[in-house]
Amino acid sequence: MHQRVHVIGRGRAGSAIAARLEERGLVLTERDADLVVLCVPDGAINEVAKRTPVGPWIAHVSGATPLAALDPHVNRFGVHPLQTFTRRRGPEQLDGAWGALTADGAEAEGHARWLAETLGLRPIVIADRDRILYHAGASIASNYLVTIYRAAARLVESAGIPAQALVPLMQRTIENGFELTGPIARGDAATIAAHLAAIHRFAPDLAPMYEALAAVTRP
Amino acid sequence: MHQRVHVIGRGRAGSAIAARLEERGLVLTERDADLVVLCVPDGAINEVAKRTPVGPWIAHVSGATPLAALDPHVNRFGVHPLQTFTRRRGPEQLDGAWGALTADGAEAEGHARWLAETLGLRPIVIADRDRILYHAGASIASNYLVTIYRAAARLVESAGIPAQALVPLMQRTIENGFELTGPIARGDAATIAAHLAAIHRFAPDLAPMYEALAAVTRP
Repeated sequence: MHQRVHVIGRGRAGSAIAARLEERGLVLTERDADLVVLCVPDGAINEVAKRTPVGPWIAHVSGATPLAALDPHVNRFGVHPLQTFTRRRGPEQLDGAWGALTADGAEAEGHARWLAETLGLRPIVIADRDRILYHAGASIASNYLVTIYRAAARLVESAGIPAQALVPLMQRTIENGFELTGPIARGDAATIAAHLAAIHRFAPDLAPMYEALAAVTRP
Repeated sequence: MHQRVHVIGRGRAGSAIAARLEERGLVLTERDADLVVLCVPDGAINEVAKRTPVGPWIAHVSGATPLAALDPHVNRFGVHPLQTFTRRRGPEQLDGAWGALTADGAEAEGHARWLAETLGLRPIVIADRDRILYHAGASIASNYLVTIYRAAARLVESAGIPAQALVPLMQRTIENGFELTGPIARGDAATIAAHLAAIHRFAPDLAPMYEALAAVTRP
């Protein structure tokens, strides 16, 4: 569908996306591109879109940003890889991840689907108006997973246990389909109270987080 | 070291532990056991310990419970598998997990180490007084991973995206060594404010959790 692609931005996501497109035999070029893919920070999308000459198709890869940010372009769409990227890995980071497509109309959706599939993503369509809620969910799943790991690591390390001991536990929690076990699942109020007392004493800054999570977790 | 083991309790952990001991050729028996392993709920440990005749070694597998719960026994120790268990799996659930040992003195620690290694756990010693803090960390890592998944699932499903799309994202977040990416890492206050507004509107019960986690996550 497209042969010459201009990828603007080589951050974590942009690097993996550019590498995958090259791997698929596409020409990465600034001149005469028939598709421009903006891999710039959300806040810069509109500015870069305005500076980009109208004509070729244009896309962004942001989760939260509406299509209107690509104004004045009308041949436009969004493909958001539902994945976290690191510079230490390459285009294989895209494999197996989902790609949330946003497009106005069937033609644009066809282009979005082509890009998602070329990147190795599993395409799924999302309405423009639902992107913020979707992206809030995605951010919670990834960012707050980091947050709870860091909090848990501080506590177990204070008790002399290396943080890496948490990794098999967390991986298995996912593998087991997020089945809740432990004191909250058992309704063990005494253990939960003891946890909270220990957190108030040794890591008081984590107490509001512990309590807010406990409130949401209780069946 | 031990040949005849009485495992009391066949819950999630007890079932896996009993199956692993049988797999290792030990005799599971109530009569003439030289080791009694209590796999009962935390609140029942002391009562069951009191009912158990003094003589053989006795252990519990609780994370938060002190050794004193095994009174009046003196040949005693604790081995806590740092893992979440499901009834849908067998003894292989123990493989690769860490086992936190608590014991008074070298002899008891030797017995604890034997049990941990027989179960397939990586033994690590933890002081009795540090158990609550350690267990609070372990519970946060596993239980609140479930909580943030459920919260994230609600939001993405409200946007028409299946919850399973979060799984590759969460697995990769762990594989990438819990590297923080996304709006908080980028200092993208506008996106965070938009998330919070959407959560207040569509899932207001999750707003305190989102805010408490955001406060802890900010660098």
